[in-house]
Amino acid sequence: MKNHIVVVGSLAYDSIETPRGKVEKTLGGSANYFSVAASLFSPVRIVGVVGEDYASSDLELLQTRNIDTQGMITAKGKTFHWEGSYENDMNEAKTLKTDLNVFEHFNPELPESYRNSEFVFLANIHPQLQLRVLDQVKNPLFVASDTMNLWINAARADLLKVLSRVHTLLINEGEAKLLTGASNAIAAASLILQMGPRFVVIKRGEYGFLMYGPEGYFMLPAVPVSDVIDPTGAGDTFAGGFFGYLASRAHSSFTTNDLKWACVFGSVMASFTVQGFGLSSLLKVNSQDVETRLNLFEKATKLSKAEN
Amino acid sequence: MKNHIVVVGSLAYDSIETPRGKVEKTLGGSANYFSVAASLFSPVRIVGVVGEDYASSDLELLQTRNIDTQGMITAKGKTFHWEGSYENDMNEAKTLKTDLNVFEHFNPELPESYRNSEFVFLANIHPQLQLRVLDQVKNPLFVASDTMNLWINAARADLLKVLSRVHTLLINEGEAKLLTGASNAIAAASLILQMGPRFVVIKRGEYGFLMYGPEGYFMLPAVPVSDVIDPTGAGDTFAGGFFGYLASRAHSSFTTNDLKWACVFGSVMASFTVQGFGLSSLLKVNSQDVETRLNLFEKATKLSKAEN
Repeated sequence: MKNHIVVVGSLAYDSIETPRGKVEKTLGGSANYFSVAASLFSPVRIVGVVGEDYASSDLELLQTRNIDTQGMITAKGKTFHWEGSYENDMNEAKTLKTDLNVFEHFNPELPESYRNSEFVFLANIHPQLQLRVLDQVKNPLFVASDTMNLWINAARADLLKVLSRVHTLLINEGEAKLLTGASNAIAAASLILQMGPRFVVIKRGEYGFLMYGPEGYFMLPAVPVSDVIDPTGAGDTFAGGFFGYLASRAHSSFTTNDLKWACVFGSVMASFTVQGFGLSSLLKVNSQDVETRLNLFEKATKLSKAEN
Repeated sequence: MKNHIVVVGSLAYDSIETPRGKVEKTLGGSANYFSVAASLFSPVRIVGVVGEDYASSDLELLQTRNIDTQGMITAKGKTFHWEGSYENDMNEAKTLKTDLNVFEHFNPELPESYRNSEFVFLANIHPQLQLRVLDQVKNPLFVASDTMNLWINAARADLLKVLSRVHTLLINEGEAKLLTGASNAIAAASLILQMGPRFVVIKRGEYGFLMYGPEGYFMLPAVPVSDVIDPTGAGDTFAGGFFGYLASRAHSSFTTNDLKWACVFGSVMASFTVQGFGLSSLLKVNSQDVETRLNLFEKATKLSKAEN
């Protein structure tokens, strides 16, 4: 019997400009990036809200990938729209405009069939909504959440409640330092574990990831990709690869080694996303591509015994 | 018969301020950091110039470590003095003051006994001086150089001549992008190889290193250290560990695997330097410490087979 992943997050249209060009209202949102990545490995269930302007083709795009969209509600109004741009180093998005639209009154309600999902990803949404989802799921095997500076600053108390209830926190480096007051990721990781999670994965963009747990640190650089077009969605794609891999393992419990491999698959999937605008590059990926990219990654980070 | 390393670089007194405190006129300079690190593995020979104010204890400090100081000249005047500070993230030094002093008229002259050194490190000095050293050594096995934005901007033609004559370039990420015009390290590495070196190692501070050569990329994060006190000299220490390990191998030629391990030992050594002001932490390191730190690094970056 397969493990199911439920993701609660945003579905959006993004307008993005990078040094490599620009796109208007391309498909985006954490739940889209996450589910396309995860669906290569495991069945995914989405909870989210879209407006009347959401294209049916964008819905079908998910349905043809083994993604259950029952939990996606259509509300009166327009879909969430984000507009942003990136400077030359592409490490940080500058938000130019955020039209929450229907996302403003989003109140996640899990269909009954979703409530026994073994794997739960609380993408970056208001911590109160994340708590609401936690109250609706029954004894999941594994729960992780993401967050952003907005919630760290404006909803810290609620965020800390979420952290006391998740197995793993996935968070960007800047936000890890903001959350903890630490001046580097190594120190931040250690402080985050005191807030509740058993593991933390700090995402470092082009510099890779840092995982920390009871057995210490595990860190690798990002997959070497020279043609970075648009980094939007890379973090959510990482989460999708991470969850997809973990849920595809038949165990009822996890080893640290499983989580290390989850980070590796997260990195592999994210490396596709950055190679095109929006979801364009990720949507073309198949299992063979994943295998090829994994081999590249292993080759770039593996240390053989020193010769004598 | 042991391989000898000759390093040509600066010997200095540094005044440094970081968020963790400040020191006045502490021992520094690329040749000092490099040689202390390398000397744990192989015999080192230094070429440099100091002023009349250079303490004899600072000279003895090297001599007790198997470092040949014949090539260190004392000139009339004061030793090179650098003053700098670091912001919270400690990734970039802000130069407050540079008193070249005797370093201004430095003209490296290798003692005859140094000229058959098998390993040559041209630390970050004017490319014309680096070329002068290259003209004095006889068929070294391995030559690497470092550089900085000052030379990339003001002495590019000379720098390109150096690059066409070295086996490996060691360079910081910001400078790799400045040198090549590339917007990320992955792309920069590839462009640098077109300038002459067979290998390039891009140093990324707290984010580790990226090596690129004929067999592709090899990258690892930095050793996880949470108590970063002062990052001054970390890059030169990396070079020292790199060279020290490579020269300790008895081969007359190199495999890519040797260079990967050289990067690992470079990272290991650099991780000690950042844990104290100036050279204070590095000077306390012995072989047992190196072994312990190497184990920590391997544990943090090694991926075991996925369990079934």
